[in-house]
Amino acid sequence: MKLSEGTVMTHLPERLLTGYRNFMAGRFVSETQRYRSLAREGQAPETMVIACCDSRAAPEAIFDAGPGELFVVRNVANLMPPYTPDGQYHSTSAALEFAVQSLKVKNIVVMGHGRCGGIRAALAPATTPLSPGDFIGKWMSLLAPAAEAVSGNALLTAGERQTSLERISIRYSISNLRTFPCVSILEGKGRLTLSGAWFDISTGELWVMNRETGDFERPDPV
Amino acid sequence: MKLSEGTVMTHLPERLLTGYRNFMAGRFVSETQRYRSLAREGQAPETMVIACCDSRAAPEAIFDAGPGELFVVRNVANLMPPYTPDGQYHSTSAALEFAVQSLKVKNIVVMGHGRCGGIRAALAPATTPLSPGDFIGKWMSLLAPAAEAVSGNALLTAGERQTSLERISIRYSISNLRTFPCVSILEGKGRLTLSGAWFDISTGELWVMNRETGDFERPDPV
Amino acid sequence: MKLSEGTVMTHLPERLLTGYRNFMAGRFVSETQRYRSLAREGQAPETMVIACCDSRAAPEAIFDAGPGELFVVRNVANLMPPYTPDGQYHSTSAALEFAVQSLKVKNIVVMGHGRCGGIRAALAPATTPLSPGDFIGKWMSLLAPAAEAVSGNALLTAGERQTSLERISIRYSISNLRTFPCVSILEGKGRLTLSGAWFDISTGELWVMNRETGDFERPDPV
Amino acid sequence: MKLSEGTVMTHLPERLLTGYRNFMAGRFVSETQRYRSLAREGQAPETMVIACCDSRAAPEAIFDAGPGELFVVRNVANLMPPYTPDGQYHSTSAALEFAVQSLKVKNIVVMGHGRCGGIRAALAPATTPLSPGDFIGKWMSLLAPAAEAVSGNALLTAGERQTSLERISIRYSISNLRTFPCVSILEGKGRLTLSGAWFDISTGELWVMNRETGDFERPDPV
Repeated sequence: MKLSEGTVMTHLPERLLTGYRNFMAGRFVSETQRYRSLAREGQAPETMVIACCDSRAAPEAIFDAGPGELFVVRNVANLMPPYTPDGQYHSTSAALEFAVQSLKVKNIVVMGHGRCGGIRAALAPATTPLSPGDFIGKWMSLLAPAAEAVSGNALLTAGERQTSLERISIRYSISNLRTFPCVSILEGKGRLTLSGAWFDISTGELWVMNRETGDFERPDPV
Repeated sequence: MKLSEGTVMTHLPERLLTGYRNFMAGRFVSETQRYRSLAREGQAPETMVIACCDSRAAPEAIFDAGPGELFVVRNVANLMPPYTPDGQYHSTSAALEFAVQSLKVKNIVVMGHGRCGGIRAALAPATTPLSPGDFIGKWMSLLAPAAEAVSGNALLTAGERQTSLERISIRYSISNLRTFPCVSILEGKGRLTLSGAWFDISTGELWVMNRETGDFERPDPV
Repeated sequence: MKLSEGTVMTHLPERLLTGYRNFMAGRFVSETQRYRSLAREGQAPETMVIACCDSRAAPEAIFDAGPGELFVVRNVANLMPPYTPDGQYHSTSAALEFAVQSLKVKNIVVMGHGRCGGIRAALAPATTPLSPGDFIGKWMSLLAPAAEAVSGNALLTAGERQTSLERISIRYSISNLRTFPCVSILEGKGRLTLSGAWFDISTGELWVMNRETGDFERPDPV
Repeated sequence: MKLSEGTVMTHLPERLLTGYRNFMAGRFVSETQRYRSLAREGQAPETMVIACCDSRAAPEAIFDAGPGELFVVRNVANLMPPYTPDGQYHSTSAALEFAVQSLKVKNIVVMGHGRCGGIRAALAPATTPLSPGDFIGKWMSLLAPAAEAVSGNALLTAGERQTSLERISIRYSISNLRTFPCVSILEGKGRLTLSGAWFDISTGELWVMNRETGDFERPDPV
């Protein structure tokens, strides 16, 4: 037993295997029926979240969400690119199409966060790309016009420029969502809502975008 | 108080706001120092996970991971596309580049799962795309050769074809990871490990890919 | 008695007379000795506050300050104009000179606040001045270059432009303070500190300017 | 926690941070709704007070005024300069214009006080100015004719000359208020009242100016 256990354990980082065992001994025990039912019936999440890959901003943690609740796309800087039906493969657009057309989610939330490395890269593009492919450079170039406008503002501190672009990018992604015909049609019919949120890693505060003004505000305490 | 509170609440799905409040009253209280330190010091996750958007397979839940532990990309069917430095924007490649070159993660785990809707779509491509842009069709076409081979195999049941392609796609993503120079170089130097895992939603079992054989095996109980 | 009381009462707004009587029956009773001593010894405040006239942002309330503690200048938008020894009379510069040279205060705090009407006027200068003298227009023109830079940024919401200029103006006033030789010399000797703060009327939060970065941050809870 | 807390605390004088915490734990708790409503609806104070910077004579304390009640200008010796539409910036005139034309206050109160350092400086102009800019000298020169007349009166004691000029200056400011067309017009229409008051720091007494005679009288006790 020792032998085979050791054999398999080396194929997954030790920390993850330990974590998985905690999951099985803890959360899964209390949610066995829910997982079984979700397997049998299929998933039917009401909400899609477009979030960042950042290890400090997992949507399931921040929204205390259980299995089956959130359909989650995560990419660097939680960007929704504009509708571009060019025949190329577009990871985030595919996820959007699946969520809206197949799962028929009712809400889409774009969730950004403070101290985002992708946003930092957009504000100060590397003179030398991270690798010859310059994938981060290309990806963050979606925000280039906004990043240039913000980084040229010498009246703002570095921290203010960062927060500013983080929030601008959430509004940008939401307006890109509306370039997808399926999104704009369903939103028009009142069957789909679009929300923005910004998570402050340091304080744990969630700032919610006011749909009318675009401002980020904190929900009142209950 | 109800009035102004309601004003902000309407800008985020009610369920998420409630969940967020649970987070603040629960997990955040016990991890305040960790979040604050992660904000001050920056993230330094050791592991990148490439996972599916599926609402039933959140890596943080399955690996019982806290803030700062996992850098997570999620797209439909947890696919890593091949290295394609064509100047287009590639969401997943950008995340990989950021994780490996900037964060210097030590491990990359591709985690698939059972009953994956993306895999199902690859096995039975829709005659009518989900939307005119056919983003899911294009995205899953990354798996087209494998999907055709599997779906043509009449000796397998539908369930076996599904599980088969789910696991083939994990091996395919891992081999695509090695097409990125930065990945293959670091793996060659022993500074980066690549792992595969497959999560069974119904039973909660995690099957770990054996690096030598490519087989998926269950870790022994402790 | 009725007659003379009525006679005098009409010479001060009724509400203020009532308030004054509350003061005499309440706070003054418990601070009689302090007022008497302050009259005998003269004032010796350690801190000068440059604040706004706004009725919602009284420094004594926000800093819970008693008699003798704060030497307070209040003008529209809490502006400190630059050092201009032109022989004209300059109200705020006179107060600064008195505080620093005569009272020898140890700290100067510029305190701005949210939803400031003066800042709003700077962002959207009236086509018709409030009165032929256009005193507000002239006064807020101190901020004109910054206001133009901020108001031209269409990527920001109206609320974000407002908050942004409110904070920029605090940094501007602090840098103007340093154009006064007496301030820069004493600050250089470590005998005078300059601080910035921004009060959020809605939440009661005080954001304190970080002297190194210029960012506004909330003090941690005790 | 001490460490990060200390980081922010050092950017504001310790005493003010303590005072702010008292405010949040005390007054703000009981007036949360009022602040929130004042933020949402905007300020609508009925009264403007022109007061002195002196740390012992805060109008909110003396009139026991809550948030939203008093629009307060504070300069050295609570002076209202005469109407001078010369294109220069005039801090106090800008505040007056804003209060009358934009906020449409109903009352203006000029509040002086005993032992005023500005008045003392006017009575005994320094042979050497406080600083090369001589801002106090210029500012108090508004009172120069009155100050000369008073200081030449050998029949008065030093204390009587001080009190005399303090009261003369209140009447002078009130007559200057009437040089502003908007003030004299609205006063003529009965929509704006002008009052004078003088606060005795030592005894806490408030002397109210009789509008007919210009005398300062104490309101009767209730």
